[in-house]
Amino acid sequence: MADGRRVRTLSPEGAIAPTGTWSLGARAGDFIYIAGMRGIDARTNTLMVGDEARVRTAFLNMKLIAASEGAALSDCVRLTVYVTDMARLRPLVNKVQEELWAGGPYPPRSILQVSGLNQDDICEVEGTFYSPQKD
Amino acid sequence: MADGRRVRTLSPEGAIAPTGTWSLGARAGDFIYIAGMRGIDARTNTLMVGDEARVRTAFLNMKLIAASEGAALSDCVRLTVYVTDMARLRPLVNKVQEELWAGGPYPPRSILQVSGLNQDDICEVEGTFYSPQKD
Amino acid sequence: MADGRRVRTLSPEGAIAPTGTWSLGARAGDFIYIAGMRGIDARTNTLMVGDEARVRTAFLNMKLIAASEGAALSDCVRLTVYVTDMARLRPLVNKVQEELWAGGPYPPRSILQVSGLNQDDICEVEGTFYSPQKD
Repeated sequence: MADGRRVRTLSPEGAIAPTGTWSLGARAGDFIYIAGMRGIDARTNTLMVGDEARVRTAFLNMKLIAASEGAALSDCVRLTVYVTDMARLRPLVNKVQEELWAGGPYPPRSILQVSGLNQDDICEVEGTFYSPQKD
Repeated sequence: MADGRRVRTLSPEGAIAPTGTWSLGARAGDFIYIAGMRGIDARTNTLMVGDEARVRTAFLNMKLIAASEGAALSDCVRLTVYVTDMARLRPLVNKVQEELWAGGPYPPRSILQVSGLNQDDICEVEGTFYSPQKD
Repeated sequence: MADGRRVRTLSPEGAIAPTGTWSLGARAGDFIYIAGMRGIDARTNTLMVGDEARVRTAFLNMKLIAASEGAALSDCVRLTVYVTDMARLRPLVNKVQEELWAGGPYPPRSILQVSGLNQDDICEVEGTFYSPQKD
């Protein structure tokens, strides 16, 4: 690549702005690695109000970054979902995934209840995608 | 591939049945990504009774899916183990791994104590495997 | 490879010694997978004293293993950081990353507060790196 780096850092237009020592995503070879996304509204840089909107926006933030490298949700190969309340939030994650993946097939997923997320948030989704480079 | 998808969803015979918006695993290029597996008995679709049996079955469920794509446990490149009680369960994870990996070498592992798993389960194992495709 | 295995287990000189059923890292194709690293002093095999030293050493332990396969910190494609206290430790993780990555770009990161780590530790970092093999 032009700058000599082998890993390409992603910062697509319309995505949220990273506020710390992390980037939105990276391409390495045929794989796209996306940072844990939360339900932050990219227009206002604030957390969405309401559990379902929060969860949906987390997935949409991930989707936008994947799409910028030619990967659709059906190209997701690993999805790890972190929630702070399994009973309350897992049904919402399922609902949002049904909607966004349009009935599947779905990616392999792990869903974990953790004791806390940044900004006391409720849901974070971490996805890895496959998007072969054109030779 | 025949269906035009670049990621192949896995559903080998004998594996547990996914009950939500997730699949058992996916192949992308030379890598196999397997969903977080728990100690569910594939014959009855219920959780195994007893901590050690629960842990062993989680690993065996993962192993079966990996094997369906030509990957042995020695082809595991990343293993993340989530438990709800580190003191009680880590020794069992170690014991089961010693048995299944037959003395090693072992994959790189992270083991985390989380505050909850689906179905109030005690252990979930998430593995990534390498199984080069024949050209 | 000489031993017929497709995944190469890493055990570079100067690294900490794995004490259980896990290895420090693995190479598969162009990717390097490193086990969750904690702030263990490789010279004494004991935990570093002090939060910041603990966090820094976790990253340095990861860095050493990556470097042994030709991967710099800028080749990190996925970083998952597990802490036991988000409010207290995330600022230290940010500080150490700023220092080690020398202002960026940074890898995609997820940071999670878990309820426990091995040895009642406070921080564990799990990194995946890209280091294309010479043909």
